[in-house]
Amino acid sequence: MSFNTFGHMFRVTTFGESHGVAIGCVVDGCPPMIPLTEADIQQDLDRRRPGQSRFTTQRQEPDQVKILSGVMAHPETGVQVTTGTPIGLLIENTDQRSKDYSEIKDKFRPGHADFTYEAKYGLRDYRGGGRSSARETAMRVAAGAIARKVLPDVKVRGALVQIGPHKIDREKWDWDEIEKNPFFCPDRDKAAFFETYLDGIRKSGSSIGAVLEIVAEGVPAGLGAPIYAKLDSDLAGAMMTINAVKGVEIGAGFGAAELTGEENADEMRTGNDGTRFLSNHAGGVLGGISTGQPIVVRFAVKPTSSILQPRLTVDRKGADTEIFTKGRHDPCVGIRAVPVGEAMMACVLADHFLRDRGQVGR
Amino acid sequence: MSFNTFGHMFRVTTFGESHGVAIGCVVDGCPPMIPLTEADIQQDLDRRRPGQSRFTTQRQEPDQVKILSGVMAHPETGVQVTTGTPIGLLIENTDQRSKDYSEIKDKFRPGHADFTYEAKYGLRDYRGGGRSSARETAMRVAAGAIARKVLPDVKVRGALVQIGPHKIDREKWDWDEIEKNPFFCPDRDKAAFFETYLDGIRKSGSSIGAVLEIVAEGVPAGLGAPIYAKLDSDLAGAMMTINAVKGVEIGAGFGAAELTGEENADEMRTGNDGTRFLSNHAGGVLGGISTGQPIVVRFAVKPTSSILQPRLTVDRKGADTEIFTKGRHDPCVGIRAVPVGEAMMACVLADHFLRDRGQVGR
Amino acid sequence: MSFNTFGHMFRVTTFGESHGVAIGCVVDGCPPMIPLTEADIQQDLDRRRPGQSRFTTQRQEPDQVKILSGVMAHPETGVQVTTGTPIGLLIENTDQRSKDYSEIKDKFRPGHADFTYEAKYGLRDYRGGGRSSARETAMRVAAGAIARKVLPDVKVRGALVQIGPHKIDREKWDWDEIEKNPFFCPDRDKAAFFETYLDGIRKSGSSIGAVLEIVAEGVPAGLGAPIYAKLDSDLAGAMMTINAVKGVEIGAGFGAAELTGEENADEMRTGNDGTRFLSNHAGGVLGGISTGQPIVVRFAVKPTSSILQPRLTVDRKGADTEIFTKGRHDPCVGIRAVPVGEAMMACVLADHFLRDRGQVGR
Amino acid sequence: MSFNTFGHMFRVTTFGESHGVAIGCVVDGCPPMIPLTEADIQQDLDRRRPGQSRFTTQRQEPDQVKILSGVMAHPETGVQVTTGTPIGLLIENTDQRSKDYSEIKDKFRPGHADFTYEAKYGLRDYRGGGRSSARETAMRVAAGAIARKVLPDVKVRGALVQIGPHKIDREKWDWDEIEKNPFFCPDRDKAAFFETYLDGIRKSGSSIGAVLEIVAEGVPAGLGAPIYAKLDSDLAGAMMTINAVKGVEIGAGFGAAELTGEENADEMRTGNDGTRFLSNHAGGVLGGISTGQPIVVRFAVKPTSSILQPRLTVDRKGADTEIFTKGRHDPCVGIRAVPVGEAMMACVLADHFLRDRGQVGR
Repeated sequence: MSFNTFGHMFRVTTFGESHGVAIGCVVDGCPPMIPLTEADIQQDLDRRRPGQSRFTTQRQEPDQVKILSGVMAHPETGVQVTTGTPIGLLIENTDQRSKDYSEIKDKFRPGHADFTYEAKYGLRDYRGGGRSSARETAMRVAAGAIARKVLPDVKVRGALVQIGPHKIDREKWDWDEIEKNPFFCPDRDKAAFFETYLDGIRKSGSSIGAVLEIVAEGVPAGLGAPIYAKLDSDLAGAMMTINAVKGVEIGAGFGAAELTGEENADEMRTGNDGTRFLSNHAGGVLGGISTGQPIVVRFAVKPTSSILQPRLTVDRKGADTEIFTKGRHDPCVGIRAVPVGEAMMACVLADHFLRDRGQVGR
Repeated sequence: MSFNTFGHMFRVTTFGESHGVAIGCVVDGCPPMIPLTEADIQQDLDRRRPGQSRFTTQRQEPDQVKILSGVMAHPETGVQVTTGTPIGLLIENTDQRSKDYSEIKDKFRPGHADFTYEAKYGLRDYRGGGRSSARETAMRVAAGAIARKVLPDVKVRGALVQIGPHKIDREKWDWDEIEKNPFFCPDRDKAAFFETYLDGIRKSGSSIGAVLEIVAEGVPAGLGAPIYAKLDSDLAGAMMTINAVKGVEIGAGFGAAELTGEENADEMRTGNDGTRFLSNHAGGVLGGISTGQPIVVRFAVKPTSSILQPRLTVDRKGADTEIFTKGRHDPCVGIRAVPVGEAMMACVLADHFLRDRGQVGR
Repeated sequence: MSFNTFGHMFRVTTFGESHGVAIGCVVDGCPPMIPLTEADIQQDLDRRRPGQSRFTTQRQEPDQVKILSGVMAHPETGVQVTTGTPIGLLIENTDQRSKDYSEIKDKFRPGHADFTYEAKYGLRDYRGGGRSSARETAMRVAAGAIARKVLPDVKVRGALVQIGPHKIDREKWDWDEIEKNPFFCPDRDKAAFFETYLDGIRKSGSSIGAVLEIVAEGVPAGLGAPIYAKLDSDLAGAMMTINAVKGVEIGAGFGAAELTGEENADEMRTGNDGTRFLSNHAGGVLGGISTGQPIVVRFAVKPTSSILQPRLTVDRKGADTEIFTKGRHDPCVGIRAVPVGEAMMACVLADHFLRDRGQVGR
Repeated sequence: MSFNTFGHMFRVTTFGESHGVAIGCVVDGCPPMIPLTEADIQQDLDRRRPGQSRFTTQRQEPDQVKILSGVMAHPETGVQVTTGTPIGLLIENTDQRSKDYSEIKDKFRPGHADFTYEAKYGLRDYRGGGRSSARETAMRVAAGAIARKVLPDVKVRGALVQIGPHKIDREKWDWDEIEKNPFFCPDRDKAAFFETYLDGIRKSGSSIGAVLEIVAEGVPAGLGAPIYAKLDSDLAGAMMTINAVKGVEIGAGFGAAELTGEENADEMRTGNDGTRFLSNHAGGVLGGISTGQPIVVRFAVKPTSSILQPRLTVDRKGADTEIFTKGRHDPCVGIRAVPVGEAMMACVLADHFLRDRGQVGR
C-alpha cells in the first residue's frame, strides 16, 4: 500500500522534490528483451519539458534522464534490452539554485497543497512546492515511455480540447496538428485563437483551466477486470493523481447523464475483423473491460493558483495575511499535462496487459 | 492485486452473481470494539433495496444480511462488538427462480458487459447479468455501513442532482427532502417534476441517465496521501467501479476548466476552529489531502441499456441480429446508486483513516 | 494489505471463527473454464477432517463445503466450470454447541494466542480459540483444491517425516504408504512405531511436535521472481502462517549450514529433456526461481499447548493462576497439517504461475 | 505485486545490478519529523561493507550512500528530518571495472541463479551476478537503518551462531563480543576457533555454510496480525529473501518438533511490568502476534558456490562442460548476512508498527 507507487504488474515508484538533489523512479515488472535506450525515454520527456514556449513555465532544465539499471547489451545482438529486473531512472535537478522563498515559507498559498501537507505532516518542503510540484510528473512520462514499449501495437495520443470556456471544433480534429502548436491542440483554428487568448491571460497575471483528451487505439477487447480493477476505474484513479486534475470521464462521460438508453447503448454489427460497434459512447469500456474500440478519456485541469494578484490567506502561526506569487508561471498548466495523461494511460494499459498476459515472455 | 477486493486497510472483498446461490463479502481490517449488529447494516441495505417505488426495478427480495463472523458479545458489557477479525456477510438470493434467458443467452446486449465478459473469459453468466449485475452493489452498501461505524464523526450523505438534462436548483437544496421522495432528490420541486418525467420515460420503454453528488462532512484536515494514493484519486477510482458510472468530478470538477486562478483558488481566513476557507472549489481536497472542508464528489450514471426497444447486435456465433429486453426495468438506474456512492465514500474515508491512524485501537 | 488474504493473482481471503456461524473463503483470480465441483474440493477436505482416528481431535463435523459463486454449467458442454469471477466457499459450523468455557474465558492458555489476541484487540473470542483455531485451515485446504486445478501438470504431496525425536528412514520412503496410515507417514515401519508412541503421549495427557515435508513435482523451471517475491520466500512465509509452525526450510535447509560449497552446489549435466541436476540440495529453487527439479519444503510444528496437565498462567485481571485443558485433544497437531501444507504449496505455485503466465486463458 | 518491493506501510523498493551504474532504493512510508542524515545510514552500511577482513570478499568499495529526497532542514530547529515523502537512496558502483567474464558468460555456475534467471528471462546479467548478487543487500541495510529510527525503543541485534558443524556455546553469549571479531560471533572462544577454521576453508578453495540469529528487544506485545500477516510469517518470508538462505526458524524452531506440550508452552506469571513469561520457546510470537518477549529468529545460509574447484555444468547451448571460479571470494558468505538479517528484522517490525499505529504522527 505504497503511496508513491503506481500499478500492480507494471509498477512505477517515484521519488524526489522539485528543488532537491534529483527526481527519480523505479519501473518494476517490465518484461525482458525489450529494446530500450535513454533516447527512447528522452523523446517523450522532451515533449513535456517546460520552457518550450511562452505559454509554459520558464524553468530551464534539460531534464536529461539516466538509466541506472535493468538493461544490458543482448549477448548475441548487442542491442541494449531490458532484463526483467527493475529499471532505475534518474534526472538531476539542475535548476535548484537558492531562491527567495520568504514569501511562501510561512504562508499557505490558496489552491496549493501547502496547507494540507502541513496539516498532514507538520512540515512541508516549501521550495518550489516540494513533492507536490508538477515536476514529479516528469518521471511518469519517463515510465510511460517504457510502458509504450510493452504495448507495441497500441497507440496512445493526447490532445487539449478546451481552454477556459473555449472548446475545439471536433469536426476539425486533425492529429497532425498536435505537434504543430504549443498547445497539443488538434484544431488548427482554435490553436491560433488560444495563442491570443492565453497571451491575454498571461499578461493579466491570471491563469485558466483546460480539458484534455487521451485516446488509445489498438487495445484488444478483453483487457480490464471486474469489479474493483475495472479498466475505467484504474484510468479515472490514474488521471486524478495528476496535479490539478478535478474531473475525469470516459466516452460520453457526464454527457451520458443526458442521453436515453437508445442513444447511449452502442449497437453492434458483424465486421470484417469481428464485431464492430456503430458508435462509441462507451469510450471503449463496458463493464470495466475493453471493447476493442478506442479508449477515450477526458480530464479537467484547474487553473494554477500561482497568479500575480494578491490573495487572502493565513500563515503558519494562524494569522490572517495576504500572499502573491512573484515571477513567471504557467498561464495554463493543463497544456503540459497532455504528455502526462498519455503516460498514465500507457502505464494503466501496460499494467492490465501484463495481468492478463503474464509478466514473463510477450 | 485482487480484482474483487477494494481498499487497503479497510478492505472489502465481494463475491456472488445476480442469480446464484448468494452474494457476500468479507470486510477485513475493521478495528475491534465497535458495536455492530445486523440491524445496523440492514438499515443501509433497505435504502438501496429494489422494488420500493415504480421507478426502480421490481425485483422483490428482502436482501436480509447475515453476519457470519467477526463479532461477539463483549465479555463485560454483553454488547455485540467487532473483534478485529474479518467480518463475513451473506445475503441469500431468494429471487433466483428459473427464467427464460433464451433471448439473451446467445446474444450480446448493447451497452451491457455481455460482449466484453465473453471476450475476456470465453463465457459469461447470462442469468441476470451474472457478476456484472448491480446486485453486487448490495454488498458495498453493507460494507459501507460498517465503514460509517469506523468514522463516527463523519457524516456521509448523497443526493441525486440531475436526471437527463434536468438539474436541481441548488438554491433549494434541503437534505431533509432526500428521504421524502423516491429519487433521493434534495430539491422538492424538482422531485415532483422527476415523478412525471420518469413516468414518461418508463412508459415509452426508454431509460435516462443521472448525476449524483456525495458529500462527506466532518472529515479532518490531513487525510489522504501523495502521490498515487491521493484522496481524490481513490474516490474517483471508487466511484468509477460503480455500475454504469462514466464520469467523476471533485469540487468544481469540469467547471474548474472554465475558471481563472483568482476564481478557483479558495482563499483562507482564520476562524474560531482554526483555518476556514471562503469557498470550496477544491471539494475538500488539495494535493490529494483533505482540507477539513466538506468533501464533494459528483458522478454521472449512464442510462441502462435494458430498454423495451429492439437494438442491433450480434450473437455469440458472430451473426447480425436484433435484441430487446422484456419485462420491467429501472427507467433510471442512477437513483439506486445514491446509497452505493455513499458507501464507496465511507469505505475510502475509513481506509485512509486507518492508514493514518492505525488499524488497532481508535 | 489485507491481513486475512493470501496471494496476489491467485488470491484467497478467509473468514470465520471456530465456534461461529460458519467459516468461509473467497478465491479470487482463478482462470475461467476450469471444471470444478463441490466434490473436487470435498475430497481434499476429507483428508484433513478431524475425528478420523484416535490421534486427531474428536470434533465431529462433516465439513461439507458449498460453492456459492464463480461457477456455472458451460453453455455447450453442460460441465460445471469456473467463470473467472470470485469463488465463494462456505462451511457451516455444526459443532458449535454451547460448551463450558469458564475455565479459559478469563485465563490465558500458555502457548496459545489468548494473551496476544487480548494484547492486540482488547478482547478475544475464547470459544474454541476463535479465529486463531486451526479450524481456519479447512478453508486453505478448500482453496488449495482449486489451486491444484490451476496446475494440472503439477503434483503436490506431503508427508510426515518426524514425530518428537523420531525421524523416518528416508530409504524406506514410499508415497503409497501415505494414505495407509493415520499419520501421512511414508515409512511403513515408522508408522507402526508412531501408533504405539502416540498412544503413550495421548494417555499421558501430553502432546508432541512433528516435522512435515511437502514436495511439488512437475513445476517448470523459471517460476518465481527476484527479489522480494522469491518462490522460496513466498513458500516460507506461507508455511509459517500455518498454526503452530515454528520453522521452515527448503532443500538441504539448516543442513546446508554444515556443507561445503562442493557438497552443496548441485552439478548439472545435459539430459534427454534438457538440463538435469545431479542432486537437489537447492530443493528446486535457485535465486528464488524454480530449477525444474522437485520443490522440497519442510516445516516444524510445535506440540499443542492444550494438554491435560496444569500449567502456570495469569488471568485477564493480571493475577497468577493455573489452567488445564479438559476433554480430548490432538496428541500431535502436526499430523493434520499435512493437507494444509500441501494446500499452501499449491496456492503459492498457482499464484506464481498466474503472475508469469497471466490470469486469463491458460 | 511488485517483485522488487518489500513491506506494506514501511515500503522498500530496490534496484540495481552488481556491476551496473549504481544501486539504489526508495523507502516509502517513513513518518515525518524523524532526524535522518547520510551518516546515520552510512554507519550501518559500514558494518556490512566487504573487504574488511580476509574472511569476506575483497571487493573494495566505499559504498557511500547519498540521500536524494525525503528530508529537509526543519524550519525551526534546522535539524535535517524526514518529511513523510519517499526517501531516495543511491550508492554508485565504483568497482565496475571491466573484467574477464568469458568463463561465466556462457556457462551456468552450479548453485548460483545463472540457470534459473536464464530459464525465466531468456538472458541474464552475467557481470558479477547482476541482480542476483548479494550487492543488492547493501540497500536493505540502508533501509534498515531508517527502519531503526522508526522504532526508537526497539533494539535489533544479530549474531553468527554456527559455521559448518561448529555451534557457539550459548552459555558464553556476550553481545559485546560481536563487534570485536570479524564474524559477529558472541562467543569469544568460538570466534578464535573460527579464525583458524575459516583460514583452512579459504586456503582449500572451498566454502562453508553458517547459521545466524537475530534478536529484537523492546517490541511491545500486540504487534503482528492474523492470519496471513503473522509477524513470524513476515519474518520468515523476509529472511528467506536474503541471498543463500535455506531455512528460517522462530524461537525453539525445528527443536520444537522434539518437545512435549509441557516443555514447549511458555508459562506465565505476573511481574512488575505486567505479564512475564518463564521461558521463550515461542521466540516472542504467539498466533502471529508479539508477546512482548524478545523476538528470536535464526536462519541458515548455504556455502557460496563460488569455489576454486572445477564443477560439472552445462553451457547456454546445452552442452556438458566444467566451470571453476577464479579470484578470491567469501569462504563464508553467512558472515556478512548478519547486518542484512538485522535490517530485515527492523524493516518488518517498522512495517507492522506503522500498520498498527498509523503512518502519520508517532
